[in-house]
Amino acid sequence: MRKYSAILGNLGNTCDRFCSSYKDNPSSLEMLKRAGKIEGISGIELVGTWDIRLDNVGEMKAALTDMNLECVSIIPDLFANKVWHSGSISAKDASVREQAMNYLRKMCDIAREMNCDIINLWPGQDGYDYLFQGDYLRERNYLVENVAVLAQEYPDLKFALEYKAKEPRTHSYLARMADTLLVCLQTGCDNVGVTIDTGHAFLGGENVSESVVLAKQAGNRLFHMHFNDNYKSWDDDMMVGAIHTIDYLELLYWLDECEYDGWLSMDQYPYREDAAGAISESILWLKKFDSMLEANLDRLKAAVAAGNAVETSKLMRSIIK
Amino acid sequence: MRKYSAILGNLGNTCDRFCSSYKDNPSSLEMLKRAGKIEGISGIELVGTWDIRLDNVGEMKAALTDMNLECVSIIPDLFANKVWHSGSISAKDASVREQAMNYLRKMCDIAREMNCDIINLWPGQDGYDYLFQGDYLRERNYLVENVAVLAQEYPDLKFALEYKAKEPRTHSYLARMADTLLVCLQTGCDNVGVTIDTGHAFLGGENVSESVVLAKQAGNRLFHMHFNDNYKSWDDDMMVGAIHTIDYLELLYWLDECEYDGWLSMDQYPYREDAAGAISESILWLKKFDSMLEANLDRLKAAVAAGNAVETSKLMRSIIK
Amino acid sequence: MRKYSAILGNLGNTCDRFCSSYKDNPSSLEMLKRAGKIEGISGIELVGTWDIRLDNVGEMKAALTDMNLECVSIIPDLFANKVWHSGSISAKDASVREQAMNYLRKMCDIAREMNCDIINLWPGQDGYDYLFQGDYLRERNYLVENVAVLAQEYPDLKFALEYKAKEPRTHSYLARMADTLLVCLQTGCDNVGVTIDTGHAFLGGENVSESVVLAKQAGNRLFHMHFNDNYKSWDDDMMVGAIHTIDYLELLYWLDECEYDGWLSMDQYPYREDAAGAISESILWLKKFDSMLEANLDRLKAAVAAGNAVETSKLMRSIIK
Amino acid sequence: MRKYSAILGNLGNTCDRFCSSYKDNPSSLEMLKRAGKIEGISGIELVGTWDIRLDNVGEMKAALTDMNLECVSIIPDLFANKVWHSGSISAKDASVREQAMNYLRKMCDIAREMNCDIINLWPGQDGYDYLFQGDYLRERNYLVENVAVLAQEYPDLKFALEYKAKEPRTHSYLARMADTLLVCLQTGCDNVGVTIDTGHAFLGGENVSESVVLAKQAGNRLFHMHFNDNYKSWDDDMMVGAIHTIDYLELLYWLDECEYDGWLSMDQYPYREDAAGAISESILWLKKFDSMLEANLDRLKAAVAAGNAVETSKLMRSIIK
Repeated sequence: MRKYSAILGNLGNTCDRFCSSYKDNPSSLEMLKRAGKIEGISGIELVGTWDIRLDNVGEMKAALTDMNLECVSIIPDLFANKVWHSGSISAKDASVREQAMNYLRKMCDIAREMNCDIINLWPGQDGYDYLFQGDYLRERNYLVENVAVLAQEYPDLKFALEYKAKEPRTHSYLARMADTLLVCLQTGCDNVGVTIDTGHAFLGGENVSESVVLAKQAGNRLFHMHFNDNYKSWDDDMMVGAIHTIDYLELLYWLDECEYDGWLSMDQYPYREDAAGAISESILWLKKFDSMLEANLDRLKAAVAAGNAVETSKLMRSIIK
Repeated sequence: MRKYSAILGNLGNTCDRFCSSYKDNPSSLEMLKRAGKIEGISGIELVGTWDIRLDNVGEMKAALTDMNLECVSIIPDLFANKVWHSGSISAKDASVREQAMNYLRKMCDIAREMNCDIINLWPGQDGYDYLFQGDYLRERNYLVENVAVLAQEYPDLKFALEYKAKEPRTHSYLARMADTLLVCLQTGCDNVGVTIDTGHAFLGGENVSESVVLAKQAGNRLFHMHFNDNYKSWDDDMMVGAIHTIDYLELLYWLDECEYDGWLSMDQYPYREDAAGAISESILWLKKFDSMLEANLDRLKAAVAAGNAVETSKLMRSIIK
Repeated sequence: MRKYSAILGNLGNTCDRFCSSYKDNPSSLEMLKRAGKIEGISGIELVGTWDIRLDNVGEMKAALTDMNLECVSIIPDLFANKVWHSGSISAKDASVREQAMNYLRKMCDIAREMNCDIINLWPGQDGYDYLFQGDYLRERNYLVENVAVLAQEYPDLKFALEYKAKEPRTHSYLARMADTLLVCLQTGCDNVGVTIDTGHAFLGGENVSESVVLAKQAGNRLFHMHFNDNYKSWDDDMMVGAIHTIDYLELLYWLDECEYDGWLSMDQYPYREDAAGAISESILWLKKFDSMLEANLDRLKAAVAAGNAVETSKLMRSIIK
Repeated sequence: MRKYSAILGNLGNTCDRFCSSYKDNPSSLEMLKRAGKIEGISGIELVGTWDIRLDNVGEMKAALTDMNLECVSIIPDLFANKVWHSGSISAKDASVREQAMNYLRKMCDIAREMNCDIINLWPGQDGYDYLFQGDYLRERNYLVENVAVLAQEYPDLKFALEYKAKEPRTHSYLARMADTLLVCLQTGCDNVGVTIDTGHAFLGGENVSESVVLAKQAGNRLFHMHFNDNYKSWDDDMMVGAIHTIDYLELLYWLDECEYDGWLSMDQYPYREDAAGAISESILWLKKFDSMLEANLDRLKAAVAAGNAVETSKLMRSIIK
């Protein structure tokens, strides 16, 4: 049984490096109201500082309860505050790393307060831009150690590391599924796993279905999923199904094969679109893909076992339309 | 009314740089027999030297007539003969350029003999691999001049230049639609146009629908179409519809908008697949896509005019399944 | 004799879609003061509205004169104002197109006032994001017609069209050199040409040296140059020479072969770097590359004529270090 | 102290999927003779079946001894024999997997005979082309189990897994450094590690220096290195230094930081070049890069520790020329 959610900020303002505001910027509570009305959504992800802080935990908790929405994850802000301009938990500067850890502890406390057990950790500024800039050995070790410290301090929380090959840095330390799994293993903590953002997987050149399998084989490390579509060369954050069709069919198939039972959360940037409409479309596409699979499950399993591309093509033609 | 064809060699042997033969190699006549049995095919493209030579024109013509197949195009071999290793009609070596022109004239004569009016010109070795290797100004001029000479000598034939950003060279002189249109315009000849290979367009980073429009705007220069699918980073030459769905829907829509009335020819490399089955699948996908469009044409036109991505997504969901 | 300049905004604030400000934001005049101190710079490009408006033309003109800086180009803001969110001169909405044309006329008047003869036109929002969204035929025609109108109204100005395959849209109408040249030709105006941004060429999969040659062959259409470096998959806007070495050597070689005598203008996004230092580095790298070429010009010409990669490699080894 | 070697086949024939032979094909012994004359080379890698078989082990061993060349590695042929067309040690077909294991055991025996302790394992056909074709869970498990079996049977040999994201399949199971390290860890065998082919790392979107560090952090798993250059989008197999400069400087720096003491082996496809000349150039470039590093080692270490891109740029300018 799928559970759909969305990142709250999707409902709000969007900017890029050229245009500071393509649309007006509603408040977090106003966005929450809009999100709650999207059919199929039963959970919300909150970005730390932006959406949730020590000073508004009670208010947000009440608002979510009112709307019958679960708090799916807290996404600490390790990307928007300029103090992390050259990294947070892997920064060269020890005082920045310490500041990041203290901030993350606060976010973990908030998560407990919200009865939310997933910290979705996207260390977007941790990486490097130029050659000869990153001290890879040392900085990757900082990252592993700091994640391990947190995971040990908060054993009741799950730390879902979100990878992305680039942006805002030209190179991120958590770049793809496999290197992120290595980090998980190096922490030695079972409560450290991975968030797949489908668009991040696409831009990193992954077959996202195989990424799901890699996480399975590394010990059930797929903790969370973000959904969006793109042209596979950049994180365009578009509606699910806008560009790709069969990729999503295969992904949902393998999520089931690997018994994923977490959230399917929408994570988009509807710069120029109606935000609630764009999120709704993504969920409706995912439901359609699931219904296409369900009606053909046995034949799909046989096709995967056989691997005959011509026969699989025939099956796909019968599934699409 | 669509006309479907295939390149004869698709039915035969496939090799790559690692494995000299994934399958057995039938003769051209045997391949022709298999091609003729594929439902929907009414034409064939022949590769010069491989499939057709001065010594077998009569035989091939008779065989095609027997099977009620049209000769859609001649594809001169400017890529498999090692004499073109560093270029053919744009080679630095004047004697190689002359040899290429003489060979091409022979192929044009054969085309006339076959009542075939399209020369599909893919100068695959014309380009460069290394930096500071190509004498771009001079070599591009050779290419333009030589195409113009041919086009003037054979005004009854149409020269369809097939572009491809790379392979076998790391850089081809005919790389994408727009630069190939510049070559067309520079020849000053109306009988010089372009072949779109969908996979080449994908690998070159093009939206192939927009490429169709570019050719239209440059004076109806789209002369021919090759179809296959890939992952958009290399010329994988896979079955149509294997990876992309909406891209093909949009492409067929714009072919109609631009009143393309040429052939839809299959051009694949079924290394490990049943060749006839793979070609058949491509045609069946194209037919399916066309029927999906036909039933929704007015709504699609309205969607393109409006440009509202959320509304278009709803329409796509109703079209797919 | 090279002429170096910079885009004024390079000296100022930088933001991306995640972080609204990595650094503090100086005023245009303060940026101008800093730019003027960078060794080697003798000209400045001004972004319309941001840096220059009807209300501050006199002030900016005086400031430039004071600092002995030429106004190299005006870059109208067709990207930061949300009114252009779905296009400017090619927008579906006729009133937006009209608004864009009126704004551009104001910018052309300002250029005359500044004794500046280049309008660097980057229509960054003109394109599309989703499939079935762009009305390619119609919208490309709007773009051509509107550029032609401007070019005829201001025959004393040169309109340098800056292409970029994507960002902020997933697809721009001016994507690469060759399609932009087609637009130039379609306007029928000799005062319409192209700006190469080296990073845009890289991200579009071009060999930028060949792009220079394409512009030459289309009738001396290279009007202007923006310089920066990237990893060839995105417009990272980094310091020249940070990633690529031989590409720049070849580019400068072909700029000379094609007798380019325009500006070499720096266009970077030093998010986390000292801005003046980053611009200065780019100019110093360009000067170094030029000195490496000068000392070896005859051998380089011979290498290009011969095309022997092993011999060229030997030459490169002797040039680098 | 660097040790340079080459793959024997580099000296011989080259073909691609279009042209069966760009050059004449010397025998393995003739190639060996040519390789031995390349200055700086002290070792050779032999491809199983092509270069070395049970029937010529003695002859090859004698020839290598004569020429004072070490046998650096055996590269079993898991890519050229059509029996592996749909995989070898991870094939769906159990009898193919068994055949592959028996072949590999023969190659391991030969390695012992040659006093060679590295089996360079590139399972190029193990992967998939189409969506819904690979049975990822099962096939990846086959691969891990089979490598583990071999590693346990031959504990005196080192198995260096060579990764490559694609070609000949559109997707390989050993795609990048990190997923290959996961395979190493899953075997539980310390004698299973990784071969970096620099071109494979480039095409997979890796910063190859960081890949070296990943292998270090996973327990000194970098067993072997293949060198070549490309444009980062395909395995062009060009001469080292042909395209990239600073990438190689950084790579050699990190090889030293991580105390790599294995071979630097040349692996190229000189389709149109003098083969011995092309290999020689690669080694000469690597030596040049090393000398550039050595003279600046302290400053480079300080630059990496500081991470100031403008300052590092100054240093790079002083190193290059």
